[in-house]
Amino acid sequence: MVPPKAIYVGPFVHCKTQLELDICEGGAIGVDETGKISFIERGTRVTGESAAKKHGWESFEVVCLRDQGFFFPGFIDTHIHASQYPNAGIFGKSTLLDWLNTYTFPLESSLSDLARARYVYNRVISRTLSHGTTTAAYYATIHVPSTNLLADICQTKGQRAFIGRVCMNSTMSPESYRDESTEQAISATRESIAYIQSIDPKHELVTPIITPRFAPSCTADCLEQLGALHKETGYPCQTHIAENKNEIKLVEKLFPEAKNYADVYDNVGLLTEKMILAHAVHLTEEEVALVKERKAKISHCPTSNTALTSGCAKVRNLLATGIDVGLGTDVSGGFSPSILEVARHAVWVSRYVAMIDGDDAKLSPEEVLYLATRGGAKVVGLPDQIGGFEVGMDWDAQMISLRTVPEDGEAQDEHEGPIDVFGWESWEDKLHKWLYSGDDRNTVAVWVKGRLVHQTSGYRP
Amino acid sequence: MVPPKAIYVGPFVHCKTQLELDICEGGAIGVDETGKISFIERGTRVTGESAAKKHGWESFEVVCLRDQGFFFPGFIDTHIHASQYPNAGIFGKSTLLDWLNTYTFPLESSLSDLARARYVYNRVISRTLSHGTTTAAYYATIHVPSTNLLADICQTKGQRAFIGRVCMNSTMSPESYRDESTEQAISATRESIAYIQSIDPKHELVTPIITPRFAPSCTADCLEQLGALHKETGYPCQTHIAENKNEIKLVEKLFPEAKNYADVYDNVGLLTEKMILAHAVHLTEEEVALVKERKAKISHCPTSNTALTSGCAKVRNLLATGIDVGLGTDVSGGFSPSILEVARHAVWVSRYVAMIDGDDAKLSPEEVLYLATRGGAKVVGLPDQIGGFEVGMDWDAQMISLRTVPEDGEAQDEHEGPIDVFGWESWEDKLHKWLYSGDDRNTVAVWVKGRLVHQTSGYRP
Repeated sequence: MVPPKAIYVGPFVHCKTQLELDICEGGAIGVDETGKISFIERGTRVTGESAAKKHGWESFEVVCLRDQGFFFPGFIDTHIHASQYPNAGIFGKSTLLDWLNTYTFPLESSLSDLARARYVYNRVISRTLSHGTTTAAYYATIHVPSTNLLADICQTKGQRAFIGRVCMNSTMSPESYRDESTEQAISATRESIAYIQSIDPKHELVTPIITPRFAPSCTADCLEQLGALHKETGYPCQTHIAENKNEIKLVEKLFPEAKNYADVYDNVGLLTEKMILAHAVHLTEEEVALVKERKAKISHCPTSNTALTSGCAKVRNLLATGIDVGLGTDVSGGFSPSILEVARHAVWVSRYVAMIDGDDAKLSPEEVLYLATRGGAKVVGLPDQIGGFEVGMDWDAQMISLRTVPEDGEAQDEHEGPIDVFGWESWEDKLHKWLYSGDDRNTVAVWVKGRLVHQTSGYRP
Repeated sequence: MVPPKAIYVGPFVHCKTQLELDICEGGAIGVDETGKISFIERGTRVTGESAAKKHGWESFEVVCLRDQGFFFPGFIDTHIHASQYPNAGIFGKSTLLDWLNTYTFPLESSLSDLARARYVYNRVISRTLSHGTTTAAYYATIHVPSTNLLADICQTKGQRAFIGRVCMNSTMSPESYRDESTEQAISATRESIAYIQSIDPKHELVTPIITPRFAPSCTADCLEQLGALHKETGYPCQTHIAENKNEIKLVEKLFPEAKNYADVYDNVGLLTEKMILAHAVHLTEEEVALVKERKAKISHCPTSNTALTSGCAKVRNLLATGIDVGLGTDVSGGFSPSILEVARHAVWVSRYVAMIDGDDAKLSPEEVLYLATRGGAKVVGLPDQIGGFEVGMDWDAQMISLRTVPEDGEAQDEHEGPIDVFGWESWEDKLHKWLYSGDDRNTVAVWVKGRLVHQTSGYRP
């Protein structure tokens, strides 16, 4: 499975800073046998041969971008429930707490059946790869065998993943779908960690992530022991916070001794720089300050927050505070497995905030693409390894193809994708068209650590 | 070009009322040579042969839906600027008034070039047809020849259309792109009307629509004469209203004698039951009452209102007042030419309103699909002819194909479309999946008045 050396030739785009894209209209990126970027040459006249010669490479593949388009870093989905994928788009008029009982727990519970888990997990990994997601932080279910199967599938298909066996031992969840006790929650978590260590000892692709579902679904005792496990193992953790107002009231009732929601996690040692907090729609100023102090990360899930009418997270405030923010599809609270869709939805949500709080709240296309890549890399703790194109980083990338409208203006076929480039657009215009209209048809190839993990019929290297 | 009689066999879905879908799991719809629905038979055992026999039909085509899916009425786009299509997705951080000057006027102005107009208009008609839009109310530009070309292309490709030559004679628009005088605006409008009468005397497919761009871009005199022309000819009219707060202030300044924005149009006889008002985001209660009294129609354009940070139209209030509302893509204030995308965005916008005004503001999937079809039919004045499946209505329809995830869960290819049906979903679930995740790949065939006007490789009748 070791890929050969390869040189990727064509325009490439990635985020230089939160506000600025680095648009290179032509160049060559050399990727070594371990999937790491070995060199980057810039210039529209650079060829695979010329770059190889300069760097003394003798044996290598050349992958050329022949249509209009560009290479872009793979997307990072910092919050996705793999087990809920079949419910994408099914949520009715529900909000968080009734949504869990009506739609979510029954589906998750059914994934104790390994055949069904394979059916669902094969599909969700194929789909997220097709949307350019090269790294994802997954919630599975409470079931150890199917959680382990999810890890196997990610490894087989080549997607970088954090795999969370879900802990939920409180009576808030139905008897048919919860951990029997704290002990059982912890031992099942350890079991899944051990399995992932056995299949990927160095966690080159797959890493366990400690996953208390959210405060209301765990007893104080369970949260405490998960905090201890986090400290003991050093593995990252993920949970939900302040998604919905009724949820916050429930937390206040269940944890009366805590100062606030964030404090529940902080009290047990779970609020650390390795914690991914999903949603954070309704954090108080005090909580924002605590999250910042602990260097905990936030996964912004705008499609989900809209679909479940949870509210609009004030991402500008979080960023201004200096908190690391990434994007999450939150399938199936979110209706789409595409981070590109989520990125444009992050623009929309910021505009709704701006309608009330003023223009400063607006996120730009550049900013949401940053959140989708570099921001996500920080959130999952890999800022030096993924999310951009730098020498020494891994080649986690997607080839974006944009077709030019033919001279007669007639449509070709539905395979060409939704973006129409007329030929007079600037690079900025083309990137905006991709952000606002692009879909999986434009993502013609995807690589993780140099390995080709997805391609469409539009891939003609 | 006269299509033969045809019988469409398979499940079909349309809106019975604003709140209720009519889901028929199997049936046959007979369409005569004029494109009208001649009979509707219900039942999963009905075949083309059995239906034909019952109705004494001897010579006919049978079109079967072989995959999972359903027939659905064609979408009605009640507000789209065909001339702005190349700018879809390009708007930066602008709001209405600077957006017009920065992006819109330069592009529209360039369509005086007929070759360029052909390039753009061929594409936008092909694209909207591919998204299932069977009827559209178009704004072209101020140029008569290219406006007429747009009418020609709609007729050739078979899309039902209202074609508006844009009137804009005030100095608010740049000198290079405005009507020289009221006289010139009126005579150019008459010229375009005469052309459309010459190519489609009975307006079976293409109808002229009187189009003052919006109050600020017309002088009072020009509006008055357009009102007179509306009265004289009986042709429908379309314009913009209360999209943006600065625009409203500008109208107050330019028309100090009017009580409000709606009153500007009412004073000149343009606020009638044949007027389509786009946006209506910030109408006052007084204006809503006037619009209702005059039976004027509203085109809700949620994607545009979000992209340009215009605001959130309170559609629930409009509907509760009894005003007819349809959906508009408002390309290119709106970033997508798809009414399906606009329909889901109407759900999102209603949720942002609900976050402030309460749950009653939420629009359901059924309601937005109603706005996209029956609602749009009322807005364009054809409620008895299009928007649903009833005997005597025209066969303006789309075939929606939904594929089932294969047993191994592996992805097939990108042509199959974005919706994953696992097999255990209810009909309601499948419709919601289509609404929230579907795209042009699911619309495998489109008919207008019984004529097949679009098909994909997935169309296997």
